[in-house]
Amino acid sequence: GEGRYIENGKMREKTLTMDTLNPQVKAVEYAVRGPIVTKAGDIERGLQQGQKHPFTEVIKANIGDSHAMGQKPITFLRQVVALCSFPELLNSPSFPEDAKQRARRILQGCGGQSLGSYSASQGVDCIRQDVAVYIEQRDKGVPADWDNIYLTTGASDGIVSILKMLVSGQGRSRSGVMIPIPQYPLYSAAISELEAVQINYYLDEDNCWALDINELHRAYQAAKEHCHPRVICIINPGNPTGQVQSRKCIEEVLHFAYEENLFVMSDEVYQDNVYSPDLQFHSFKKVLYEMGPEYFNTVELASFHSTSKGYSGECGFRGGYMEVLNLDLEVKAQLVKLLSVRLCPPVSGQAAMDVIVNPPLPHEPSYLQFHKEKSAVLGALAEKAQMTEQTLNTVPGIKCNPVQGAMYAFPRIFIPPRAVEEAKSLGMSPDMMYCLRLLEETGICLVPGSGFGQREGTYHFRMTILPTTEKLKVLLEKLRDFHIKFLKEYASLEEPKR
Amino acid sequence: GEGRYIENGKMREKTLTMDTLNPQVKAVEYAVRGPIVTKAGDIERGLQQGQKHPFTEVIKANIGDSHAMGQKPITFLRQVVALCSFPELLNSPSFPEDAKQRARRILQGCGGQSLGSYSASQGVDCIRQDVAVYIEQRDKGVPADWDNIYLTTGASDGIVSILKMLVSGQGRSRSGVMIPIPQYPLYSAAISELEAVQINYYLDEDNCWALDINELHRAYQAAKEHCHPRVICIINPGNPTGQVQSRKCIEEVLHFAYEENLFVMSDEVYQDNVYSPDLQFHSFKKVLYEMGPEYFNTVELASFHSTSKGYSGECGFRGGYMEVLNLDLEVKAQLVKLLSVRLCPPVSGQAAMDVIVNPPLPHEPSYLQFHKEKSAVLGALAEKAQMTEQTLNTVPGIKCNPVQGAMYAFPRIFIPPRAVEEAKSLGMSPDMMYCLRLLEETGICLVPGSGFGQREGTYHFRMTILPTTEKLKVLLEKLRDFHIKFLKEYASLEEPKR
Repeated sequence: GEGRYIENGKMREKTLTMDTLNPQVKAVEYAVRGPIVTKAGDIERGLQQGQKHPFTEVIKANIGDSHAMGQKPITFLRQVVALCSFPELLNSPSFPEDAKQRARRILQGCGGQSLGSYSASQGVDCIRQDVAVYIEQRDKGVPADWDNIYLTTGASDGIVSILKMLVSGQGRSRSGVMIPIPQYPLYSAAISELEAVQINYYLDEDNCWALDINELHRAYQAAKEHCHPRVICIINPGNPTGQVQSRKCIEEVLHFAYEENLFVMSDEVYQDNVYSPDLQFHSFKKVLYEMGPEYFNTVELASFHSTSKGYSGECGFRGGYMEVLNLDLEVKAQLVKLLSVRLCPPVSGQAAMDVIVNPPLPHEPSYLQFHKEKSAVLGALAEKAQMTEQTLNTVPGIKCNPVQGAMYAFPRIFIPPRAVEEAKSLGMSPDMMYCLRLLEETGICLVPGSGFGQREGTYHFRMTILPTTEKLKVLLEKLRDFHIKFLKEYASLEEPKR
Repeated sequence: GEGRYIENGKMREKTLTMDTLNPQVKAVEYAVRGPIVTKAGDIERGLQQGQKHPFTEVIKANIGDSHAMGQKPITFLRQVVALCSFPELLNSPSFPEDAKQRARRILQGCGGQSLGSYSASQGVDCIRQDVAVYIEQRDKGVPADWDNIYLTTGASDGIVSILKMLVSGQGRSRSGVMIPIPQYPLYSAAISELEAVQINYYLDEDNCWALDINELHRAYQAAKEHCHPRVICIINPGNPTGQVQSRKCIEEVLHFAYEENLFVMSDEVYQDNVYSPDLQFHSFKKVLYEMGPEYFNTVELASFHSTSKGYSGECGFRGGYMEVLNLDLEVKAQLVKLLSVRLCPPVSGQAAMDVIVNPPLPHEPSYLQFHKEKSAVLGALAEKAQMTEQTLNTVPGIKCNPVQGAMYAFPRIFIPPRAVEEAKSLGMSPDMMYCLRLLEETGICLVPGSGFGQREGTYHFRMTILPTTEKLKVLLEKLRDFHIKFLKEYASLEEPKR
């Protein structure tokens, strides 16, 4: 195999082979950048080199990467980052005064007033303070202490750090981590890497992917037999499922976590991405406070936000923060120690986070443009969310819940039994085969539902709503044609379920 | 303790306590941001609030954080980052043409031509290509394939990723990782976190901290009894020890790694920081090639570089790269998968890395200023390296090897037996007590040698040579006075060793 080669007539083994690779690394799966995406890249390069395909362009709807899909950056944010990066621009008349003030404030918080210094491991003080003020305003006055704020390298980094703290024990006392199914595969990947026990609780597809408290109890009780459930993870608004949790549901989850002594991890990176006009985002933090001191003085809660989503879509800056409540003081020192080994999150990402939590105020020169840009992005997303749901639901054999929030549709697709059999004979999950064929025939790159988890016997894909409206229309039409053709090809006596 | 509290008259345990914390996290130590540094921060805040101390300023010489110590950024680098961040500046006449060209090239490599897109997990293609060209030039024509280049979030991120791949087995077959002592504590921290076995090989203090091949053999043979040695880590130029390895020594290490089938990790982040005019940096890659195909086709080698050190000192950008040679192809796919879970390194850090590997050329408008700035930084560091060594060696009871490279002195300090006893009675390492007292009495913040490892019964501290020449003079004078006073205070019949 790969790992061996002949040398001086002897077989010589490589040091690092599939046999000697860390088995926890081997166990990691991450579909969002999995084989379909690799293949899409190959096809794209092929197209550039003149290879023939039944399409002229690969449309990537596999990952929440807004700018790559044509979304423009928020001007004020980029002005602030540019001013921080090259402070000579503070003398330029072409930058607005509020952007300059902001850049000066951030630079004051940096060692040597430079973005090139390490920040404290928890992040730049004044940015952490701005995050705390933002949370207080968002949560209608619920207090936030900036000592509980940690800036992170994207939300992923914070999530992995907290999970890392929580994993201990062996055998039946090994830490169990409750995650929604379908989930964002960072969670399953981190759980594999840390050798924790993954506890699946299924979201209710028939009820717009709502979290059902009875299902939480079921999953918890079943898991208790073979591990020690210690953490519950929630993604709200949902990824890949797009649901926005009701206040009542959040209260139930927090009550459950309180009763069962679970650490709560609330992934709220899509908090600005709510499209249904009759729904609103409630933070776990706010609901916890409203439940009273018995709850807010006890439940250990970490919540996560990011620069990558919302209306700014600044994925490349790898900015984010987490707020961690009710952490034991000694454990907190351990967390800071753990973070300090990696020194600090990227400081330009911290600066970007600062703008998102502290946008221009009504009296400031950048206010109007900022809000115009923000509304344009969120308005277009809301429109595309609705268009995606509606179009998909016109296709026989596809059923799509409303995209209430986040950036994805996760429709259920009917795959005929003959196609299921064919996929199995190829050693492939049926939705993987579906997505591969879709890519090869139309150039559309989606992620199979199996990469996120789904109930046995059901099939889905995740698609982003990020392509421009024109491109999204094309995508949805091609998808419709493909699906109908696919159903015909594998038609049997059984009717597609709607 | 901390983790318990009374609730409704019952004791309630927190979910995450020191007892339930991941023991691997607990085991992590990281002295560079340890208790001395926390204390320094407290004193600094105290001074600002008007507290009285026997000094007016804390001088932080604990961490290689150049800009925080007053070093100015390289103009061209910051211009490129600012242009990438806010591309409207591409129309500004106040930016030089070469910076604009560079920014355009980088943006062409980004999705949607935006720094806000995720890059590929390995980094932006054209930046990886620039890295490969840089390595070829640095190594006098030894070929470099950009497919072997991975951009990273600082060097630390790459080092941890490679170590993570290499850890497997249980008990006597558990992976052993050979590291120099003294070492940069990222290594010991990562080894703890991954539950690998740390194998210490001691650098030869009496020989300018050179690596002694016999000591490698000794350490390897001893370790084989209780683990499976699989990796050897080298830091060249050395951190905290500042030595620059000879070509001969590197060849010996590579031969040893070849014979024992070890994976080689070569931390070369200080490759631009060589001060002794009679020494030069040799990369492990270049020496491996010069040893012939039997070596360069087989030895698995990962080498690391960073934006944080050298002449740019851009720590906050968290940029870096690694080159990985002779990796098994299936394992390579696993590495890419592992990296993809964290999506990508910060793209502005990638842009900064690009400038460092591809500085302006002689015919380009920014060439002169770039080289003036670069030479000024490296010249000042060389001067401070010499001043530090010379001054420290005038102090009775301090002995400092030449600071041949990197950014640190790691002098041996004589601590009188009575002081050693006092420290032990306080449950503290003697050099920790020394550094604490130094901080409290002078405001100078250093890191005790015990945080890096040292031979039993010897004591050291690490200090950076980064303060400005004026401040460094003050620091060295205060240190001298403190040391003499300390020796007197604890004087006994025994003479300080020189």
